[in-house]
Amino acid sequence: MTTREMAQRAKHDFIALQALPHETKNAALGAIADALLRQEQAIVEANRLDLAEGERTALAPELLRRLKFDHAKIATCVEGIRQLIAMPDPVGRTLWASALDEGLELYRVACPIGVIGVIFESRPDALVQILSLCLKSGNAVLLKGGSEAANTNRALADVIHAAAVAEGVPDGFMHLLTSRGEVGEMLALDEYVDLIIPRGSNAFVRYIMDHSRIPVMGHADGICHVYIDRAADPAMAVDITVDSKTQYVAVCNAAETLLVHADAAAAVLPRLKAALEARGVELRGCARTRAVIDCSAATEQDFHTEYLDYILSIKVVDSLDEAIDHINAYGSHHTDCIVTGDAGAAERFLQLVDSANVYHNCSTRFADGFRYGFGAEVGISTNKLHARGPVGLEGLLTYKYLLCGHGQIVADYAEGRRHFRHTPLDKPYR
Amino acid sequence: MTTREMAQRAKHDFIALQALPHETKNAALGAIADALLRQEQAIVEANRLDLAEGERTALAPELLRRLKFDHAKIATCVEGIRQLIAMPDPVGRTLWASALDEGLELYRVACPIGVIGVIFESRPDALVQILSLCLKSGNAVLLKGGSEAANTNRALADVIHAAAVAEGVPDGFMHLLTSRGEVGEMLALDEYVDLIIPRGSNAFVRYIMDHSRIPVMGHADGICHVYIDRAADPAMAVDITVDSKTQYVAVCNAAETLLVHADAAAAVLPRLKAALEARGVELRGCARTRAVIDCSAATEQDFHTEYLDYILSIKVVDSLDEAIDHINAYGSHHTDCIVTGDAGAAERFLQLVDSANVYHNCSTRFADGFRYGFGAEVGISTNKLHARGPVGLEGLLTYKYLLCGHGQIVADYAEGRRHFRHTPLDKPYR
Repeated sequence: MTTREMAQRAKHDFIALQALPHETKNAALGAIADALLRQEQAIVEANRLDLAEGERTALAPELLRRLKFDHAKIATCVEGIRQLIAMPDPVGRTLWASALDEGLELYRVACPIGVIGVIFESRPDALVQILSLCLKSGNAVLLKGGSEAANTNRALADVIHAAAVAEGVPDGFMHLLTSRGEVGEMLALDEYVDLIIPRGSNAFVRYIMDHSRIPVMGHADGICHVYIDRAADPAMAVDITVDSKTQYVAVCNAAETLLVHADAAAAVLPRLKAALEARGVELRGCARTRAVIDCSAATEQDFHTEYLDYILSIKVVDSLDEAIDHINAYGSHHTDCIVTGDAGAAERFLQLVDSANVYHNCSTRFADGFRYGFGAEVGISTNKLHARGPVGLEGLLTYKYLLCGHGQIVADYAEGRRHFRHTPLDKPYR
Repeated sequence: MTTREMAQRAKHDFIALQALPHETKNAALGAIADALLRQEQAIVEANRLDLAEGERTALAPELLRRLKFDHAKIATCVEGIRQLIAMPDPVGRTLWASALDEGLELYRVACPIGVIGVIFESRPDALVQILSLCLKSGNAVLLKGGSEAANTNRALADVIHAAAVAEGVPDGFMHLLTSRGEVGEMLALDEYVDLIIPRGSNAFVRYIMDHSRIPVMGHADGICHVYIDRAADPAMAVDITVDSKTQYVAVCNAAETLLVHADAAAAVLPRLKAALEARGVELRGCARTRAVIDCSAATEQDFHTEYLDYILSIKVVDSLDEAIDHINAYGSHHTDCIVTGDAGAAERFLQLVDSANVYHNCSTRFADGFRYGFGAEVGISTNKLHARGPVGLEGLLTYKYLLCGHGQIVADYAEGRRHFRHTPLDKPYR
């Protein structure tokens, strides 16, 4: 099948998919969980081929670790699917309702978006998570995983497709793309594909954004900040900075830049230096930072850089507002934190920082769908439109307006024979 | 000021604008209403220049009528502003909250989007409506109106800007663009502009979509359908079709195609022909339509056409599902209606038609922000992402997550020393 045919098929089958009863979707999810457990052997063997190829091509140990798909990973995937089954049907929920007039009822009802193109790197668990989220939310998917995981992805996709279709899910609900060429073709199919979700490096996401008219949900950079206010508790400031920087450095919600109020610099910076250097973090400071602690010099470029590594840029600022301006100008509108005991300063920071996640006295690493209690996430969005922050089931939905009447026509209202009432309706569409 | 400077200024001033107290925004809206009334003379004189130029260049009478801005139009604008003042502040509303753990509270809070570029044709009332909606929702605006209304738009923008700034609204909250060149420049400023809302012809909206990386909210086509089911009441079917087609032909929510179930054709089509031809509507039917009534032949292209005129294409279908398939394939996902007395057929239609507005037994002309009770609208969106259908204040908002802690770090949760609770929080952020 060509990529265009897959997309056409997905768009066609989406119509039936979006109307599937909750029981059918849950039965399919249950069958997928069972099939993953039953066919564990075949999946693990396919993964062994990928691992062998990864070792042959000297893939980095971190990537090999992410690529590995074993009994424990399958069990985690199945656990995630069971949680999803327990959640209520997100589709068909009445979000708002109003009686425009007697017997003329307007309902805003949640419904799936359509065909979603997801492109992700390495981790095969992402495939299972994305497919189950899309199935529960009634969306069709075109999916492209990392080529290092080609055998694992194919095995997982085959198991999932067969199990779902046997339960009555339309055949075209998912297609696995297997080459870069197919991804390029998909980016041009704006007639059929409603949304692209890319998960991967900054350069990768930007490439996607620049090469498609299809809306893209996600984030490119994750330049997150911790700002230590003059009224910060020094011990808390150190803990939060260390966690934000080092709890896991290779992720988008790790801190890359530390801002320190001038009045706090002398008390906090030496303690921070000791704690961060003990974890192997290289510090790059502005001139005022280096007047307090010994570290290498930060350039202008450092403050624009997402290191994803054990490096932290540091800048001393004279005021809360200077910190806010720096974050709005240099940040990526992802996740930024203020550490302060001053409620007024916290309030101002939370209000004026224009980011998807804005924190007071806690680590930037909390920005995550699981930690937010969303069950699972398809990614974190720094978009201003649609879903922002960690994106779970809800971000995969749109809505439509249903208006149910008894023959009403606009001429009667336009010519004054009838009048709108706009009475709130406290009942769901069904 | 160059367009880039205007956009930078708007982006900068947005930070203060989005945090304006409700009282300041309402005081500014009140001052704008007063100033419009006080400076009516100057506005009407500016409009006279535009009208004179329009007559000189032989503008169509319909366009001249839309261009005219007199005492009555100003009064309507002021009435709209007063309604907006009475509405609650949409910004800062807590949409959802959860305690991730004791003393670690997550809030999803509504906030404005940023800098919005609005491009509209002719009607100067749209300028007043858009500016007041954006001010109430805390968004900055770059605004380009039709060149036929250049003097009126300039006069209105000057009055509004002066009144708002005198009440403490940041100077850069709005800029009027005055040339096509500036619009072209704005489309390239994705660094500063968060959203484009184009209002105008199909070709115009498509041009905007094709020439910018900035997300576009709105609709190009409005190919709306009325489907007369086999179980339709013939009198109701005629009334709804006549209203959907003729109540105002030049708008996006007017019907362009009529689908008729084969079993209803003989009873309904002759009555429809009489009623529609009495209103001057030209009918273009498929072969099966023409076997029942005398009319011209519809081509394949007719079913793809938004006439915006007294023309209706008609197709006879064999089933409800054929009607649904036709609408999903040929329609523009705007507004589509079923006329039927069969509740099951209505249910299936409402569920399977993939449009922003799906109706049962009422005119397509109801798809409108005022009629939906939204107070005002910036346009109607057929986007799948973000706002869909008529877009009022709510569609001009996004949200951010605020997380308020007491020093919590992720390592404690990752290493099992603390556990997430995810308890629903029934209180607003403030």
